Amino acid sequence: MSVDLSRYDNAGFQRGRSAVVEVAWMLVSGLLFRHSLAVWNGGKVGALRLFGATVGEGAVIKPGVRIKFPWKLRIGDHAWIGEGVWIDNLADVTIGSHTCISQEAFLVCGNHDYTDPTFRLRTAPIVIEDGAWIAARAIVCPGVTVGSHAVLAVGSVAVSDLPPFAVCQGNPAVQKTTRRIGTASEGRA
Amino acid sequence: MSVDLSRYDNAGFQRGRSAVVEVAWMLVSGLLFRHSLAVWNGGKVGALRLFGATVGEGAVIKPGVRIKFPWKLRIGDHAWIGEGVWIDNLADVTIGSHTCISQEAFLVCGNHDYTDPTFRLRTAPIVIEDGAWIAARAIVCPGVTVGSHAVLAVGSVAVSDLPPFAVCQGNPAVQKTTRRIGTASEGRA
Amino acid sequence: MSVDLSRYDNAGFQRGRSAVVEVAWMLVSGLLFRHSLAVWNGGKVGALRLFGATVGEGAVIKPGVRIKFPWKLRIGDHAWIGEGVWIDNLADVTIGSHTCISQEAFLVCGNHDYTDPTFRLRTAPIVIEDGAWIAARAIVCPGVTVGSHAVLAVGSVAVSDLPPFAVCQGNPAVQKTTRRIGTASEGRA
Repeated sequence: MSVDLSRYDNAGFQRGRSAVVEVAWMLVSGLLFRHSLAVWNGGKVGALRLFGATVGEGAVIKPGVRIKFPWKLRIGDHAWIGEGVWIDNLADVTIGSHTCISQEAFLVCGNHDYTDPTFRLRTAPIVIEDGAWIAARAIVCPGVTVGSHAVLAVGSVAVSDLPPFAVCQGNPAVQKTTRRIGTASEGRA
Repeated sequence: MSVDLSRYDNAGFQRGRSAVVEVAWMLVSGLLFRHSLAVWNGGKVGALRLFGATVGEGAVIKPGVRIKFPWKLRIGDHAWIGEGVWIDNLADVTIGSHTCISQEAFLVCGNHDYTDPTFRLRTAPIVIEDGAWIAARAIVCPGVTVGSHAVLAVGSVAVSDLPPFAVCQGNPAVQKTTRRIGTASEGRA
Repeated sequence: MSVDLSRYDNAGFQRGRSAVVEVAWMLVSGLLFRHSLAVWNGGKVGALRLFGATVGEGAVIKPGVRIKFPWKLRIGDHAWIGEGVWIDNLADVTIGSHTCISQEAFLVCGNHDYTDPTFRLRTAPIVIEDGAWIAARAIVCPGVTVGSHAVLAVGSVAVSDLPPFAVCQGNPAVQKTTRRIGTASEGRA
């Protein structure tokens, strides 16, 4: 049996805001977020909050960040969103406190049911728990929870949940070691 | 023995159109394709056809798409070219009907012979057969044919042909399962 | 124990130039480098040298290249920096002669100590030795030396040194074969 994309129908998808709000966000995003110039961080955080995002204290948004729907985004305290990060949040994305989302990481909430002849859209939320680190160019797939203080290594792809404190690598990412955080290392700073 | 790039010579490479046409395409591409703003899909399809591409009915071209040579591109009916897709088609690229090329996927036709002291350019066509899905940030290498209804998973790299209905993952991508399309799933929509 | 990014402190990091020079570079980079339009190669090479880079004869810089600190960059003779390459050189990056850094490859010198409660910044230099090839969308991690004439395959991630003439693939990249450069292949050109 084959797929027929002419029958695709995402009318049931909830965008969460009116088209007017969406266009307004696109304009604001183009002015403040989607280019490589440095913009005052407080302005970006304020814009996100104005469009419905929850953003904690001390959160840092670097240049070139792409956010689909700010009204489906929660960012904790002292979270870092790195240069060129893409949050394609068709569903809710929750980014915990003290997290680091590094350069060009990609959080994607949209998927398709490839067993369905109409290629039905499936969306699922992403949760990045407190203290986790999504390294550069890593990808977090729809529905994944990255456990507290877990690490997703550079260029790796998380297709299922990562346990807390797991250091994971590869495509698909598998656990390689466990993150141990100690006071001993402070002496090296 | 070592490589000597000062001896590199791609004079034999056929770009397919005059420099004037190429510059005109760059301008059109910059105006209609290569930015993040929404542009009327019919205008983009018309521009591709004007520059020699074959584009089917119902094809959708999202923002930020990069196409090297439209005159070396064929897109079928109801094919989707996702946001930020890069079609680096130094050779012919054929994208079948009812295909989905997701966000930032990369179809690359250019390679080098690394056994050659002059690092000779090698180009080879890519074929994405009907119903296939190239998921987000996946890469299809020169000369690869992605079989009908095959799936290349998120961030995976196809370095050799994918069999029809194969679901492939990893770098290099290997078959993980077989895609089965059924009417049963329609009830879930 | 958990990480506390409010205690993060990178005051010890040496940027290498004053803020004025950095802003000037950002402007020049925006004008000459960071867009998709073709710019005279000699102008780009001259700008890099003006900002402290060492650039050899015959080096080619394609459009869309991102360089963090030109004063921490050395490029050899007849080296190619491909479209959209990102050299995030918080530490020194040395790119040898007759090297090819292909499209959207990423050389990243910044890391964090994830065992440290303050998530201490760690930077380490990258060396790409003569004749090596970093293929499209590949990633070279901090501190890695890519040996002479080694090849890092498309989309692969080098997390440790690659031996000379090794052909490496995957995430993490492992050696798959050895590069042999012969005069025999010249007949095929």
